[in-house]
Amino acid sequence: MMFDIDDLNDPALAARVQHRIDHKTKPLGALGRIESLALRLALILGREAPRIESPQLVVFAADHGIAARGVSAYPQEVTAQMVANMLAGGAAVSVLARQHGLALTVVDCGVRGDIAAQPGLVIAKAAHGSADCTQGPAMTRRQCESAIDHGAALVTQLPGNVLLLGEMGIANTSAAALLMAHLSGLPIADCAGRGTGLDDAGFARKLAVLDEALALHRGAREPMDVLAALGGLEIATMVGAVLQAAHERRVVLVDGFITTSAVAVACALAPAVLQRCVFAHCSAESGHARWLQRLGAQPLLDLGLRLGEGSGAALAWPLLKSAELLLNEMASFDSAGVSEKSATQPDAP
Amino acid sequence: MMFDIDDLNDPALAARVQHRIDHKTKPLGALGRIESLALRLALILGREAPRIESPQLVVFAADHGIAARGVSAYPQEVTAQMVANMLAGGAAVSVLARQHGLALTVVDCGVRGDIAAQPGLVIAKAAHGSADCTQGPAMTRRQCESAIDHGAALVTQLPGNVLLLGEMGIANTSAAALLMAHLSGLPIADCAGRGTGLDDAGFARKLAVLDEALALHRGAREPMDVLAALGGLEIATMVGAVLQAAHERRVVLVDGFITTSAVAVACALAPAVLQRCVFAHCSAESGHARWLQRLGAQPLLDLGLRLGEGSGAALAWPLLKSAELLLNEMASFDSAGVSEKSATQPDAP
Repeated sequence: MMFDIDDLNDPALAARVQHRIDHKTKPLGALGRIESLALRLALILGREAPRIESPQLVVFAADHGIAARGVSAYPQEVTAQMVANMLAGGAAVSVLARQHGLALTVVDCGVRGDIAAQPGLVIAKAAHGSADCTQGPAMTRRQCESAIDHGAALVTQLPGNVLLLGEMGIANTSAAALLMAHLSGLPIADCAGRGTGLDDAGFARKLAVLDEALALHRGAREPMDVLAALGGLEIATMVGAVLQAAHERRVVLVDGFITTSAVAVACALAPAVLQRCVFAHCSAESGHARWLQRLGAQPLLDLGLRLGEGSGAALAWPLLKSAELLLNEMASFDSAGVSEKSATQPDAP
Repeated sequence: MMFDIDDLNDPALAARVQHRIDHKTKPLGALGRIESLALRLALILGREAPRIESPQLVVFAADHGIAARGVSAYPQEVTAQMVANMLAGGAAVSVLARQHGLALTVVDCGVRGDIAAQPGLVIAKAAHGSADCTQGPAMTRRQCESAIDHGAALVTQLPGNVLLLGEMGIANTSAAALLMAHLSGLPIADCAGRGTGLDDAGFARKLAVLDEALALHRGAREPMDVLAALGGLEIATMVGAVLQAAHERRVVLVDGFITTSAVAVACALAPAVLQRCVFAHCSAESGHARWLQRLGAQPLLDLGLRLGEGSGAALAWPLLKSAELLLNEMASFDSAGVSEKSATQPDAP
C-alpha cells in the first residue's frame, strides 16, 4: 500500500500569500494565529486566494475488544447507541454540524452489532469489532488493510476540500494511548488518561491492562503492524481517510486524542501528511497535550474538551472559515485608502 | 448617575441548568468550558433554556489627544479611515460580522473630524477627540457623562440580548493602559504594551509619556474621575453601553485590552456587571493577560490577536452560540435511549 503525498513546501507561494496578509488593513501580525492559519490554508489548497468547498465532518465508529477488560466507564453498547443518536441529530456533533452547515457522515467501521442502513450512515465494516489486544492483535493484517482501503475509498466519494475528523468507540482512548506509547516510546502513564471518566481504581486497572497489551506487542516495528496490533477499526479507517485526503490536498481538521492517533499513524507512513493538518484543540485527555507537542502541532482551542465525536473540530471550524474569509475579503491599505504605519514615529514634543 | 444592576446569583436556577447539562448524551463535564459558558448564558438571561436573540456588534470609535505625543505607530487620521473601511465592509470586523450574521454598528463617539451620516453609523460625539491627558483631563466631567449617556441610550435602542464590544481609536491602548494602572495600582510597565506595533524606542517613549499622565492625575479617586482624567471618549461611551446592557441582563461579549478597560471601569461603578461578561480572548497586548487574571476572567480564545475592532469578540462568538444550541438541542440519555455510565465499572476478568 503506497500513498503519494507531495511536499507542500512552496516558498514563492508562501511569500505571495504573506504579502497579501501583510497589506490587509491591520497592523502587521495583528490577527495572530488566524494569519498563520490563512497561510497554511493557502499552502494546502495551493492557491493565493484559497476557497473552502463543501466541508465534510466524518465520524468513524467502531467497537473495541479491549472494552471487555473494563477500560471504559461506559458499557460497549453505547457505541451503537451514540451512532443512532448522531444520526437522529441529538449528539453534540450533530448540533454543531447543523450550526455550521457541515455535512455529517457517520461511518460504521466495525461496530459490534449491525446498524440499519439509513441516510447519513456509511457501512464499511472491516470486522464486527476489533479483538482484545491483550490476547492477540486487535486486527488481522487483512482487516487493517481493508479498513484503510475503506477510509481512502470513502474520501474519494466525498466532495469538498476540507475533512473534519470525528470518532466514536467505547474504549478507543485505550487504543489511542497504546498507539501513542508504542510510536512515541513514552511510558503508558504519560499517554493514557481517564477517557470518558474513570475513577481512580478504574484508571489504575486501565493502566495495568494497557501495560499487558504493550508487552504482548513490543515486537511490532512497522507502523502498519503497530496499527493492526493495537489500533481500532475506526482508527485504521481514519488512517486511510487521512492519507487519501492528504493525497488530494484536502485540509484535515483534527479533533482530539483519538483522531490525533490516526494522524500520527498516517504521518508515520507518510510524514508530509502533517502539512495538511490543522489541530482543532488540545483536549483534557491527559496524553493529548504531550502528543501535540511531539508532533509540533499548535492547537487552535484549549477548552478542556474530552468528548470526541468531532465536537472539537466542529467548534474550531469557524476559525478556519474566518481565516479564509479574512484572506479573501479584507481590504488592503491601498484599496481602502487607509494610511500605513509611520515610517518614523513622531517625536515627542 | 446610578445604575441598577442585580446580582444574578440564583442557586436554584443554576442547579436546574447544571442538571440539564449533566443529563445530555456525553460524559460528565466532557464539553469543558462550553458547559460553564452555557451555564453562564442561562444565568444571565435568567432561563433554563436561554435563547440568543439579535446579537449586536458595536464598534465604539474616537480620537485621543495623547496621540500627539507619539504613543502610536499610526497617524491619527487612521481612526476615521478605519471607520470608513468598517462601514464599507473591508475591515476585519466587517468580514467577521458578515460571516456570523452579526448586526454591525459603528459609533462615532468622538472622532476628530466629522464623518458623513450613513447606514450603520451612529453619530454620538461627546467631543471632537479627547484632550491630551498629559496636560489636563482627557475629558471634562460633563463630556464624560455625556459619553456615558450616549452609550446607555444607544443600547436601549438596539434589539437583542447579546452585545459584542469593539473599538477603534488611534492611541487607545495608551488610554486603556492608564486606566489599568490607575485602577489596579500596577506599575505602568506591567500595563502598557506595543499597541499596533511600536518599536523599542517608540515603546520607551510611550511609557515615559504615560508616566507623565499618571503623575498628573494621581489624585483622582472616584472611578468616574479616573475615567474622565485618563479614558477616551469611546471608552466612556462603552462604559455607558456596558452598564445599560448589564442592567437589561444582556450578555456582554468582551473583546481585547481596550474593551476590557471599559468593562473594568463599569465594574468599579457596579461590580455585578462582571457577572454579565464573557471574555472572548486573551490578546497579545502585554497587559491584557494580567488584567484578565485580576478580574478573575477566563477568556475563551488565546490566539495572539491584537487588532481590536471587536475582531476577537466576533471570532469567539460561535462558541457562545454553540453553548446555547448544545444546551437546547442535545438529546438526554433518556430521550436518546443511550446507556448511562456504569455505576460500578466492570471488574477485570
